[in-house]
Amino acid sequence: MSYLHPDRLFDPDPTVRDLARELYTSVKDLPLLCPHGHVDPKLFSLNEPFPNPTELILIPDHYIFRLLYSHGVRLEDFGVPARDGSQVETDHRRIWQLFGDHYYLFAGTPTGVWLDAEFAEVFGISEKLTAASAMGIYDQIAEKLQTEDYLPRSMFDGFNIEVLATTDAPFDTLEDHVSIRDSSWEGRVIPTFRPDAVTDLAHFEWHENIGKLGDVCGYEITSYATLIQALEERRVFFKSLGCTATDHGVESPLARRLPDSEAEVLFQRALKGKIEPEQARSFTAHMLMEMARMSTEDGLVMQIHPGAMRNHNRAVFERFGPDKGGDIPLKTEYTHNLHELLNTYGNDPNFRVIVFTLDETTYSRELAPLAGHYPAMRLGPPWWFNDSVQGMTVFRERITETAGFHNTVGFIDDTRAFPSIPARHDVSRRVDANFLAGQVARHIMDMGDALEIMHSLAYGLSKQAYNL
Amino acid sequence: MSYLHPDRLFDPDPTVRDLARELYTSVKDLPLLCPHGHVDPKLFSLNEPFPNPTELILIPDHYIFRLLYSHGVRLEDFGVPARDGSQVETDHRRIWQLFGDHYYLFAGTPTGVWLDAEFAEVFGISEKLTAASAMGIYDQIAEKLQTEDYLPRSMFDGFNIEVLATTDAPFDTLEDHVSIRDSSWEGRVIPTFRPDAVTDLAHFEWHENIGKLGDVCGYEITSYATLIQALEERRVFFKSLGCTATDHGVESPLARRLPDSEAEVLFQRALKGKIEPEQARSFTAHMLMEMARMSTEDGLVMQIHPGAMRNHNRAVFERFGPDKGGDIPLKTEYTHNLHELLNTYGNDPNFRVIVFTLDETTYSRELAPLAGHYPAMRLGPPWWFNDSVQGMTVFRERITETAGFHNTVGFIDDTRAFPSIPARHDVSRRVDANFLAGQVARHIMDMGDALEIMHSLAYGLSKQAYNL
Amino acid sequence: MSYLHPDRLFDPDPTVRDLARELYTSVKDLPLLCPHGHVDPKLFSLNEPFPNPTELILIPDHYIFRLLYSHGVRLEDFGVPARDGSQVETDHRRIWQLFGDHYYLFAGTPTGVWLDAEFAEVFGISEKLTAASAMGIYDQIAEKLQTEDYLPRSMFDGFNIEVLATTDAPFDTLEDHVSIRDSSWEGRVIPTFRPDAVTDLAHFEWHENIGKLGDVCGYEITSYATLIQALEERRVFFKSLGCTATDHGVESPLARRLPDSEAEVLFQRALKGKIEPEQARSFTAHMLMEMARMSTEDGLVMQIHPGAMRNHNRAVFERFGPDKGGDIPLKTEYTHNLHELLNTYGNDPNFRVIVFTLDETTYSRELAPLAGHYPAMRLGPPWWFNDSVQGMTVFRERITETAGFHNTVGFIDDTRAFPSIPARHDVSRRVDANFLAGQVARHIMDMGDALEIMHSLAYGLSKQAYNL
Repeated sequence: MSYLHPDRLFDPDPTVRDLARELYTSVKDLPLLCPHGHVDPKLFSLNEPFPNPTELILIPDHYIFRLLYSHGVRLEDFGVPARDGSQVETDHRRIWQLFGDHYYLFAGTPTGVWLDAEFAEVFGISEKLTAASAMGIYDQIAEKLQTEDYLPRSMFDGFNIEVLATTDAPFDTLEDHVSIRDSSWEGRVIPTFRPDAVTDLAHFEWHENIGKLGDVCGYEITSYATLIQALEERRVFFKSLGCTATDHGVESPLARRLPDSEAEVLFQRALKGKIEPEQARSFTAHMLMEMARMSTEDGLVMQIHPGAMRNHNRAVFERFGPDKGGDIPLKTEYTHNLHELLNTYGNDPNFRVIVFTLDETTYSRELAPLAGHYPAMRLGPPWWFNDSVQGMTVFRERITETAGFHNTVGFIDDTRAFPSIPARHDVSRRVDANFLAGQVARHIMDMGDALEIMHSLAYGLSKQAYNL
Repeated sequence: MSYLHPDRLFDPDPTVRDLARELYTSVKDLPLLCPHGHVDPKLFSLNEPFPNPTELILIPDHYIFRLLYSHGVRLEDFGVPARDGSQVETDHRRIWQLFGDHYYLFAGTPTGVWLDAEFAEVFGISEKLTAASAMGIYDQIAEKLQTEDYLPRSMFDGFNIEVLATTDAPFDTLEDHVSIRDSSWEGRVIPTFRPDAVTDLAHFEWHENIGKLGDVCGYEITSYATLIQALEERRVFFKSLGCTATDHGVESPLARRLPDSEAEVLFQRALKGKIEPEQARSFTAHMLMEMARMSTEDGLVMQIHPGAMRNHNRAVFERFGPDKGGDIPLKTEYTHNLHELLNTYGNDPNFRVIVFTLDETTYSRELAPLAGHYPAMRLGPPWWFNDSVQGMTVFRERITETAGFHNTVGFIDDTRAFPSIPARHDVSRRVDANFLAGQVARHIMDMGDALEIMHSLAYGLSKQAYNL
Repeated sequence: MSYLHPDRLFDPDPTVRDLARELYTSVKDLPLLCPHGHVDPKLFSLNEPFPNPTELILIPDHYIFRLLYSHGVRLEDFGVPARDGSQVETDHRRIWQLFGDHYYLFAGTPTGVWLDAEFAEVFGISEKLTAASAMGIYDQIAEKLQTEDYLPRSMFDGFNIEVLATTDAPFDTLEDHVSIRDSSWEGRVIPTFRPDAVTDLAHFEWHENIGKLGDVCGYEITSYATLIQALEERRVFFKSLGCTATDHGVESPLARRLPDSEAEVLFQRALKGKIEPEQARSFTAHMLMEMARMSTEDGLVMQIHPGAMRNHNRAVFERFGPDKGGDIPLKTEYTHNLHELLNTYGNDPNFRVIVFTLDETTYSRELAPLAGHYPAMRLGPPWWFNDSVQGMTVFRERITETAGFHNTVGFIDDTRAFPSIPARHDVSRRVDANFLAGQVARHIMDMGDALEIMHSLAYGLSKQAYNL
């Protein structure tokens, strides 16, 4: 019925494949834990039908239009909204055809793997997407989106999601989370405290953001001390709505405490619009220490997502804004950069920090040795560009021997593409099953141990690491 | 008949092997596109017989004597000419025997793989090279080299080369290219514009080179402005002889424009022999911007080959000159270094830049994300030390998920060893076939898509990327 | 009888597995060469029974308690002695049970692979270690340790060790080596000259160490010149007891000669306790040049082990001392850092330097190109965190194509865990056999060549490189 092969992503070797299938089968129906992602909670508070396939699947997904852009497709022609509101393509069928014409570009990419699975398993499409089949598939999806089963809450339930964490600024009122909590619907949607928009003094909307933070707190943020007070208050509020974690997107994972007086000076400079890039970096490094300190006190699990140079392509940023496929990874260093944070808090049983990377060279060299020693540290799964079949395989290969399986935290979908969530978890479960099958086939572990580890990777570690 | 196995370089798994064989068979007889290399065009303008196996195969190939040198063989004893003209071994049979004695060193290396294939398929040798068989093989090759079929043009035609690009300094008169063009022979041999010898102000023969450039231009290069004028003129001349690309060998890929006045100051310092290394680096970074600017105007495809510390072993350099196996790669950074170039020209539909690396850590971290976003950028194939079975496999594994196949440009042999060209392309076709077979066997793509991609990798992408 | 599979660590593909088994079988009974490690020579001079399984296997092995510590087990509870002599757990049976309770953490780690093999093959245990079986296994091992066959010398002979090198400070009297030499036992236990404790001016016990060096030399070390004299004398003494190599554990492999007068200034500052970290680093870089100079004169093979930040976790260091699992690798650079050393001594036929790394990114980028050119340089095998199934596979994959097999030096166990030595060599022989089997199965080499290389990797290269 479907073009999807039941044994996809497994090694062709029959011994490994049989073991992989058995391991995968043992977990494929477990609930999905989604402790970090970017789905809009408004979907579930409103629970309105998705408008059409293009606005649901294509326009918000920079993983998709990034690759078309690299082959000369203008973002305007793909319907990506311009910041100045100038005209872009609005014919959603025409955009979908453009996508179909370029779908060959996704061969061998995780986006291709996810979309193939999403079309088949979420929308019941039985033919492969091509330039020729594109519009027929559009019509089938469009029709389904008008039905009850494809409302956001129905899909959430149908996906067997146990918990979904969103990512939210400290000044967010979390009104959608409140509304979901107060509704009759049982779905668990929790916020995550991500303060970058106010702790990064060089953020392009920092002044506006600090104003908003003051608004939700009911007092003006005129000093570093007030900022700390506000952040502590908002963490309490976030926790009251089920939040279990914070998240910090930083260019460098450097964590280094400043004297409070110096932090205050930098904050005052920022208020006056006089912050230098290097000063902003110092403040960010200081705030990582402060955030770790707060985590030891309130128990929120700290996540660090470092290593991207944001908005590398200034022309695209200026015309279309952030998150348009122009973020490029950088070499990242952890051994020195996390030294102070781990020395101060890394032996504390009340603290947990989950560290991610876009720099795979750090897996075996720095991250696995650190996580394989410090009790507070765990490793986040392969992230962003590395959230892929090969990326996950490399992660297990380069992490496991030094850090084992239990210093990792299971899969994280990290997506704004809600209907791709099951496909993403499925890829992870398949790749981990295949990795473990390889270990069993090489007699490094036996099947009994592999089955237990498989369950941990698909469910248990995530539940435990994020206190879900 | 031959010691070469027809399924060499394919995975042993029968499923993968059968698919790989089918994919490989579909492209193995396609013409060879050679858009970047170092074959001497004089071979084809003169079309004289090659002197003997040692001078043809061993003495010019630093991939070969590098490894013997690492095991204590003196370069003098291998017949490598000294710069001062002092005595080196001239008995070519003795050198060949020395090579045979050490041929075991090449087990598992691409040079070993190429030579095995070259001996068998170009020279029809049926026994493996060993210390014992070496001289018999020498005699067989020597005899063939005296026949019509082994003249350079015959070999070129027999290899099914569609186009071969050489690499040429701006002051090169291209008289061999002119002579080939004006001959009755149909072979397409085109120049490539490589200006390093005059744009690197610290080049050990820079003054001499600037003089030569003035000679071919008919005016003295006394200023930065004249240099720019001369380079632009020479690009026109190169294009008139079929050139489609430039090439830039730089230690760092840093591209950063200087004010023209500052460029002039540096140029004047160089003329006076007073250039500091750091100043030369600034000038090189500036010239990359200028070369990109010229490419947007004249359409020559820009290649950047960065990341080697040249002539690491000063004693070898002083006695034998450059390109003697003593160039060693360096860590290379692209995200920051190419920022200005890509921001200035990377969205320009008239520009194409093909970026290479010797630092495999940049594949997934920097190069694939950049090429997977900027329309102007493509990734060159694994180069030099990475032009190997494992190197190519790693390239596909670490690039494809983020950049896809179509942001790469097919195979490039980059060789001065003319008779090794078919073997090099054959390795590439086999490794890509095997990689795609693995994808099909894992049900990531179907065979129809794999066959199309196979054709692109073996022929289409190169033709398109280099405007051949 | 055993839970160990005879084909463990081999690829599941039947073709590869059969070839791997044949290659492995050809070397599995060869004697063990152990040219670098940390076994205490006193074991063999005293030849007393090991006290109990916990003190033999667990407490000295930071590979083991590192991972338990990362999961919240206090080092005190594991019996790790505190520097201040304060109370730690002394119930060895209780510690062993704690170990058994956490043995699941070692799934997929080399420590797990080694321990599984050690229990089965050294101690004849037939059931897998689990929380439930732990104490039964303890009793079996404890009983064996009281028998003649498990005395250190018996185990050494039973392991078929041909030579075992220890690692010793220049001020070590080597009295155990003397005692072993003078005993009736035939076992060959040789010292290695490792001067870090006196050449690192920032070593935490430097003053004490310099005093000890003066004591064994019979004169006070009051100047840089005296230090050089003392080191030269001690090298002569070490050689008289069979020493063939030196070892240098440095944070960076930078080697750079200072004028003697400047070295003297730094030494005098250190004597006065006024050395700055940057000055200590300069002195270390200078001493690498001096040590290379001495090696060209006395023929001791130089080993460089760079790239770890020692004692990253200060709290653990202060309470428990060095080597407690808190050393974390750093990015390491070789092309520039070894430039002066290799330019000065790298073409010298009397010199050999074996270079190690904790940074796998340097394998294909820097180390293989350097070792594939300089006659003096060889590559040490995967070390520490990379001494593992995957680590060894990556090493061969990323080194071989550029450096070949013969620029590597065979396996090194580098362990203080004496009873794990056979298991460690066995893993290496299996992984190399499997790698070569893959090459044969892909027709890159034939089985005859593979068998020869297999013997070199398991025995010949080590013997030759270390002049054993």
